[in-house]
Amino acid sequence: MSDLDHLRNAIRDIPDFPKPGIIFKDITPILANPTLFKKAVHLMAETVGDQKIDKIVGIEARGFIFGSALAHHMGAGFVPIRKQGKLPGDTYKTSYTLEYGAAMIELRQDAIHPGEKALLVDDLLATGGTVAAAIQLLDQLETDLIGIAVLVELGFLKGREKLANQTIFSILQY
Amino acid sequence: MSDLDHLRNAIRDIPDFPKPGIIFKDITPILANPTLFKKAVHLMAETVGDQKIDKIVGIEARGFIFGSALAHHMGAGFVPIRKQGKLPGDTYKTSYTLEYGAAMIELRQDAIHPGEKALLVDDLLATGGTVAAAIQLLDQLETDLIGIAVLVELGFLKGREKLANQTIFSILQY
Repeated sequence: MSDLDHLRNAIRDIPDFPKPGIIFKDITPILANPTLFKKAVHLMAETVGDQKIDKIVGIEARGFIFGSALAHHMGAGFVPIRKQGKLPGDTYKTSYTLEYGAAMIELRQDAIHPGEKALLVDDLLATGGTVAAAIQLLDQLETDLIGIAVLVELGFLKGREKLANQTIFSILQY
Repeated sequence: MSDLDHLRNAIRDIPDFPKPGIIFKDITPILANPTLFKKAVHLMAETVGDQKIDKIVGIEARGFIFGSALAHHMGAGFVPIRKQGKLPGDTYKTSYTLEYGAAMIELRQDAIHPGEKALLVDDLLATGGTVAAAIQLLDQLETDLIGIAVLVELGFLKGREKLANQTIFSILQY
């Protein structure tokens, strides 16, 4: 089996979570397996390629997991986008709707210098609502966003269309 | 300056956050700086030493950041302890009180096999309430917990006393 097959086989489909009708892609078995976790991080780095990246931006909470490991692996800084009320200091905020629910996210105004190159990282791209909100925040900092890297892309939810002028790096597509 | 001085100097004191009277230790400047972030992760790994670790357990959300990078660096699996309602499947739950507020956390029942060696990781040890709750969950899985690794230990909050029979690995103490 290829590395991609091993990763794909480790993902569990959880029907009706967190709400009826939604099939949740549970990636925790990949995280729990050191070989698969390392492989996933390395594949994400390879897919992005040999570009200079100043900051890897992770969206709370699951985006912290791959974002942090990738920042460490690629030698970039890590910047958290957090849920409301968690970041001290001056922040930019934006609200968005999700597949299930609504939320507000925040980014520190001094988190990234204007023109710095950033990569936005999350575990999964679904409708793209969270990522689009995060990009709004990064635009306010005049970040040079080189793309969005995710482990799993749920193609049928058309997140890529919502993010049409962005580069999407994904490892596994459904 | 020593590595420890560089790390200590990067931490910002934020008075009255998230509530009046609390001085928040903001570690995001360490994360944002690739050299300091890598140094922090390497120092945490060195402090734990050359022990076999099967699983690194990170507590949502900030514990995911160092937990994930450390798991990747040390070649261990990563297991998230999450806030209520975020993990699918059968979980153990426990509630606890914090320095500011209360919360419930969950761990999947199949996250760690009985007897596996785990290291619990968070960015900061304060009163130890969250960590004590996490240990309750790990005990239910019969985890062999080799210790708790944090970047920052707020000694004056006496978390170490609450966790008296545990090994605490901390890099910076206040």
